[in-house]
Amino acid sequence: MREDRRAILRSIAAASLGGATVAASAADAQHPSVSNDADMHDMSAFPPQWKGTEQIVMLVYPEFTALDLVGPHYMLSSLWGATVKIVAGSKAPVRSDTGLVFVPDLALGDVPRSVDILFVPGGGQGTLAAMQDKRLVRWVADRARRAKLVASVCTGSLVLGQAGLLRGRRATSHWATHGLLREFGAIPVQERVVWDGDLVTGAGVSAGLDLGLAVVAKLRDRAYAQCVQLLAEYAPQPPFDAGLPSTAPKDVQQMTASMFDRLLVEMKQTARQALSGG
Amino acid sequence: MREDRRAILRSIAAASLGGATVAASAADAQHPSVSNDADMHDMSAFPPQWKGTEQIVMLVYPEFTALDLVGPHYMLSSLWGATVKIVAGSKAPVRSDTGLVFVPDLALGDVPRSVDILFVPGGGQGTLAAMQDKRLVRWVADRARRAKLVASVCTGSLVLGQAGLLRGRRATSHWATHGLLREFGAIPVQERVVWDGDLVTGAGVSAGLDLGLAVVAKLRDRAYAQCVQLLAEYAPQPPFDAGLPSTAPKDVQQMTASMFDRLLVEMKQTARQALSGG
Repeated sequence: MREDRRAILRSIAAASLGGATVAASAADAQHPSVSNDADMHDMSAFPPQWKGTEQIVMLVYPEFTALDLVGPHYMLSSLWGATVKIVAGSKAPVRSDTGLVFVPDLALGDVPRSVDILFVPGGGQGTLAAMQDKRLVRWVADRARRAKLVASVCTGSLVLGQAGLLRGRRATSHWATHGLLREFGAIPVQERVVWDGDLVTGAGVSAGLDLGLAVVAKLRDRAYAQCVQLLAEYAPQPPFDAGLPSTAPKDVQQMTASMFDRLLVEMKQTARQALSGG
Repeated sequence: MREDRRAILRSIAAASLGGATVAASAADAQHPSVSNDADMHDMSAFPPQWKGTEQIVMLVYPEFTALDLVGPHYMLSSLWGATVKIVAGSKAPVRSDTGLVFVPDLALGDVPRSVDILFVPGGGQGTLAAMQDKRLVRWVADRARRAKLVASVCTGSLVLGQAGLLRGRRATSHWATHGLLREFGAIPVQERVVWDGDLVTGAGVSAGLDLGLAVVAKLRDRAYAQCVQLLAEYAPQPPFDAGLPSTAPKDVQQMTASMFDRLLVEMKQTARQALSGG
């Protein structure tokens, strides 16, 4: 059993370091296909049950919040055998709300009909626009129908809601938009990571790190996820205790909440149009 | 005074939401210039002292770790009046070690001689290659000389070390590479975020969120940073207590550490060549 444990952990090492090794040997290839196959490593000693075959698709759209994506992406890309692709409306570069520009791997139409995991990040005005993008919402609804796991972070859950995926489901969202969950028929839950069968939703932005680790633990096991946590040195020490409305100073909370006033009105209107239209 | 406090917080709102608003009004522009000017907002009520003018440059290189960059980028891009640019060896897209592809704003040579803040993320094999890239290391040494603040996360501190910037300075790094800091003449400190005058270094990967908030607090004030923390809903809840070698299960710790054996040898050789050569 001890040997088994070591093999599990070696598989994580191979998955995590595999990408770097492959890329170093193909430095001239700008966009090599991304797969955690760790082809460069001798995997014969590893128990085959620790190698997955998940096809993971992570959506991006103009003005999404990059940290919503990149936290979970760090964790999910450690899954040995999994393939992680970034998908957007087209293959043109996509600008995040803080100005980072990402090159997607695939356009929506290029994604296989069946994928195992579908992930949707959040944002502000960009997420409102995504909720109003009928082609994008239809695509999310379609791929979610056949996915084994649908995941979101932050206001990404509102895109899932718009696609009709939250009806009767326990879910969460960024604290500022949590009150909108009922518009989609969801059961709002005030937790950082909320599971409901094959649906997992995370709270705002940085909750993606916790969600990503939880998904890794679910798909592999506790030791695998602990190894990924250690790799990420995820022993957080926020300098203040202001990460929640209930712990932030009252004036900080009030003013930050007020930033969302207009956005909330528009998101609520959009949600109601979807329900009446759908 | 209460009005002043409200004005401070409104400035954060404007900075954070400014990018999204500008972009929404210029949806056809793929790569608008990124500046937190919040031009679309009426800033006349804001106390001018809360608007900064920082020119922030964040370096990327092939196979860097995206989360090292994107955690601090979320925080720094909230600074009202600051300009944040992503810089690479050339303007060609840069692939991170988990396969995310970023489009830089600038090539090294396009960066003004003087920038206010220089940030360097870490990685594995990619960081080793960056340490061995004489042009890149010379550029880091040069821009750091005139910067008001030099920052790194994870093994990014080794690139700073290679550029001669850690001699006699308190610094940290990813736990796996912490032992290499002495190779550069640094004073290794076992803390998550380590300040030494105009140098701030963070521990591994996820420490970038804590470092980013600490820098925001230093450049603006506590209330500003608390508002950014609340926006990020940064109230972390790691599912396990395995983020440090001292808290992870022993076999998880041993195997994860062993992943770095070969890399550490190569990084140490590179560090010693730099010292003997310089």
